[in-house]
Amino acid sequence: MYGAVIHAPGDVRYEERDEPTIIDPTDAVVRTVAACVCGSDLWRYRGISPVPKPTPIGHEFCGLVEEVGSAVTSVKPGDFVVGGFNPSDNTCPVCRKGAHANCQHGDHYNGAQASRIRIPQADGTLLATPGMPDDDLVPSILALSDVMCTGWHAAVSAGVGPDTTVAVVGDGAVGLSAVLAAVQLGAPMVIAMSRHDDRAALAREFGATHVVAERDEAGGAAVKALTDGIGADCVLECVGTEGARLQAVGAVRDGGNIGLVGVPHGDLPVNDLFWRNVGVKGGPAHVRAYLPHLLELVLTRTIDPGKVFDLELPLAEVAEAYAAMDERRAIKVLLRP
Amino acid sequence: MYGAVIHAPGDVRYEERDEPTIIDPTDAVVRTVAACVCGSDLWRYRGISPVPKPTPIGHEFCGLVEEVGSAVTSVKPGDFVVGGFNPSDNTCPVCRKGAHANCQHGDHYNGAQASRIRIPQADGTLLATPGMPDDDLVPSILALSDVMCTGWHAAVSAGVGPDTTVAVVGDGAVGLSAVLAAVQLGAPMVIAMSRHDDRAALAREFGATHVVAERDEAGGAAVKALTDGIGADCVLECVGTEGARLQAVGAVRDGGNIGLVGVPHGDLPVNDLFWRNVGVKGGPAHVRAYLPHLLELVLTRTIDPGKVFDLELPLAEVAEAYAAMDERRAIKVLLRP
Repeated sequence: MYGAVIHAPGDVRYEERDEPTIIDPTDAVVRTVAACVCGSDLWRYRGISPVPKPTPIGHEFCGLVEEVGSAVTSVKPGDFVVGGFNPSDNTCPVCRKGAHANCQHGDHYNGAQASRIRIPQADGTLLATPGMPDDDLVPSILALSDVMCTGWHAAVSAGVGPDTTVAVVGDGAVGLSAVLAAVQLGAPMVIAMSRHDDRAALAREFGATHVVAERDEAGGAAVKALTDGIGADCVLECVGTEGARLQAVGAVRDGGNIGLVGVPHGDLPVNDLFWRNVGVKGGPAHVRAYLPHLLELVLTRTIDPGKVFDLELPLAEVAEAYAAMDERRAIKVLLRP
Repeated sequence: MYGAVIHAPGDVRYEERDEPTIIDPTDAVVRTVAACVCGSDLWRYRGISPVPKPTPIGHEFCGLVEEVGSAVTSVKPGDFVVGGFNPSDNTCPVCRKGAHANCQHGDHYNGAQASRIRIPQADGTLLATPGMPDDDLVPSILALSDVMCTGWHAAVSAGVGPDTTVAVVGDGAVGLSAVLAAVQLGAPMVIAMSRHDDRAALAREFGATHVVAERDEAGGAAVKALTDGIGADCVLECVGTEGARLQAVGAVRDGGNIGLVGVPHGDLPVNDLFWRNVGVKGGPAHVRAYLPHLLELVLTRTIDPGKVFDLELPLAEVAEAYAAMDERRAIKVLLRP
């Protein structure tokens, strides 16, 4: 079979790889219907994170179960499934607390930008749709494997609810998903921080009530101007750079919360935040905890997170998918084998 | 009138000071019934925080209103009142969000270890009891001016509730109050981390279900052994030193929360906490937000936070009060003019 392998910064290749097989009795093998490129994949593509050797890449997918190990009971060959970017057993003490990203038996995929994928911990990772979903729902189902759950995680981690004002730092696919999450969680004011017209338009389509184009200190001041002069109750930081984190610090009100989902590439002034009583929480998303609810919202066409995909390519053109996202020609690229 | 003035590390004197007067129409003047020494006062007493010049000291009190400014409407001369350590107007946009410690018109006392005290923002700071409280309730009412509200703040900031296990780092008056708060908020398991028999006994009296004497890594391991191997859902950090903060990091489960109220004297590994999905929130307590509920609990004799006072001295012996707390001969000292 074929899949994406990153060889070096800027060098992603579509090449032949070993067929995935059942190794543990808790495994499944899935034939990919759709996969995609994540903003976090770009850290290696851009040389910010190391690429010590050629490595299969990708962690988002939906597809059809082909084969299951002897211990798998919740999915069967032929099921249409989606799985989170971080496999979990859904039974350990940490999962029972809802913190699936930190599962005691967590694992990873050996490259999900591929035509077939070995899924460890299949019972605790995969969720099957009831019957075969309409094809136009595939992008939104695929979005649940990471980006929508990650935006949701930012909102949940920051305590977003019907009584909270929200500002979202980052207008990439995660930031846009965070807007959608905040609206869905009932926030009456959702401020998208974006200076790209197309992304701002999608943020508004997702329910953002305001768009702020300013960044950094001016961005914080603009958010304060909209929030009684004090800043947003909840700020969702969906980038991870030092600048984005400080922008979040500048936009949150005293006593508020920052939800963090951008992979950290900078520090946080925790002791300043102490005096301001600002909370900080976040990390990799607890996808399996959120999947059942969000899949229901997608299948009932209540939310359409698949709109973050603004380019679709054959999996064979995965190199172009990376280039398009790196050069910001696309928000997020969907790949079909 | 007389009050405490800190001149240098280790040098607190009881000396004559100017009589406090109404300066702003929102002021009140209170005749002190009881005051006390705070763990945070010891930072200056021990030379860890600077003492650039002789400074009146103290920020906890209860007493009788003697005089009010022309704009004060909620308290009147003769009322028995308690006030928080951080005056607030209780009306600004930040206070309306419940974050009174960060009030836009916040202020401070010019030394509350004194026989009379000027109270800025009297309407937003003071709460009067209905009638004159029984004298045996005075210590518990006094405890609401800081230590009990601070323990409560740690628990609220960490999201303590009926479904959460709790560990408390620090067995000083704030840590013991945090135990009482966690029990009152319904936590079914409250682990006090203490190696002093008298303090551990009071923690148990306040409702701690377990006591762990180990510290640092061994302390974290002991908490994990009690919590399904994963650590406590909520850890209340009531000290502020680097060691105490790291002990909290070691005792909290992945996906859990640390409530911070110890004045920071050390950093936090925020990016490690990101990967573990551990939340961090806290700071100075929103006393005025908590006072009405907690005063009700005291007046109905539901809680008795005044038990943290294990030494009572005349205000004139304030120097001995500092020495007793510094040398750990007393948990917390109550002073009466």
